[in-house]
Amino acid sequence: MRVVSTTNWFDGDTAMKILLVGAHGTVGRGVAAELGARHEVIAAGRHGAAVTLDLADPASIRRALDPLGPLDAIVSAAGQVGWAPLLELTAEQWAFSVANKLMGQVNLALIGQQHLRDGGSITLTSGVLFDQPVPFGAAASLANGGIEAFVRAAAIELPRGIRINAVSPGVLVESMDDLGPYFRGFEPVPAARAALGYSRSVEGADTGKVYAVQ
Amino acid sequence: MRVVSTTNWFDGDTAMKILLVGAHGTVGRGVAAELGARHEVIAAGRHGAAVTLDLADPASIRRALDPLGPLDAIVSAAGQVGWAPLLELTAEQWAFSVANKLMGQVNLALIGQQHLRDGGSITLTSGVLFDQPVPFGAAASLANGGIEAFVRAAAIELPRGIRINAVSPGVLVESMDDLGPYFRGFEPVPAARAALGYSRSVEGADTGKVYAVQ
Repeated sequence: MRVVSTTNWFDGDTAMKILLVGAHGTVGRGVAAELGARHEVIAAGRHGAAVTLDLADPASIRRALDPLGPLDAIVSAAGQVGWAPLLELTAEQWAFSVANKLMGQVNLALIGQQHLRDGGSITLTSGVLFDQPVPFGAAASLANGGIEAFVRAAAIELPRGIRINAVSPGVLVESMDDLGPYFRGFEPVPAARAALGYSRSVEGADTGKVYAVQ
Repeated sequence: MRVVSTTNWFDGDTAMKILLVGAHGTVGRGVAAELGARHEVIAAGRHGAAVTLDLADPASIRRALDPLGPLDAIVSAAGQVGWAPLLELTAEQWAFSVANKLMGQVNLALIGQQHLRDGGSITLTSGVLFDQPVPFGAAASLANGGIEAFVRAAAIELPRGIRINAVSPGVLVESMDDLGPYFRGFEPVPAARAALGYSRSVEGADTGKVYAVQ
């Protein structure tokens, strides 16, 4: 196929400046490898990354973003949740899950959009437990559902052509040593394949989408 | 069709004892009319109902449920959310939405299941904004997404044959005076028709389902 471009939305020669939150996690390392091959990826996380940031603390998100200058994309491959049998999840575990994977990512999007160039993008992380639950995973399922609905809603209100999508990865090959017993029968996804969902969001033109890489 | 029952799950002559939270709201009045025709419906709400209960306060849920004795079903037609343009929703409005429609309903389910007879049911409320967003509705969308994922997850872990579903009503005919401008082009649903979703959940045999009445 010979592609004759009639628009200028894609310029394969221009590297983007991308903030990647959760860069040192299992998904994040895959995303860093995929997007880092073509773009400037600024690693962010709670510990040991170039930018220190705690998703559960909006003030820390503001402090982290302020000095960075305009960004082309913000990617979250982060978001912790409580993990326990439904009737043993404590109020603290529910609050932790909401503050991190759910509202932490929402706050990253809402604060982050101010730091994006026109037409920039935001990519959040949902997960397979959204509609394929497993025991112990109710708080994760809830957070994923909130994120998927949020990106559709935010997509129709974000200003300046800013896009927002989510990626919903399956359980990762690289996590099966820890998570395997909870995910029997699920087909594990290599982090490098999950990373393609983030590439589609950042380097594509969609908004309000959820890319299931499962 | 002549129905010859081979099981005893349905006994059309036995009235259930149903707690209905949000009984005086627009959806709740429709549900009370539908289920009240065949069952004992105990109305609960923040003000003026037989049982006083604030979904945002787990202690008030416990206080309300303790004296009621065993229930056959718990229905939530409640759950307030913040309503504002995406970039004007305050931290307080997000927290209010999460505490009420999202975690308020989750807490009602988790506390309430202890008060249900074996095989009892829980029915929560999502809404059309889950996947059909409108401006001002991002917090509602997020809460709906969390609820839909939660009922699927809780359904596989609840004990004693307890079932859980959600109903996702469209905008109600009875709400169009207030909400019409936000929902242009949406086909409004009479509360009496939305109530059928709650009937299917309470009087049917499903679990982990979302009934879209839109």
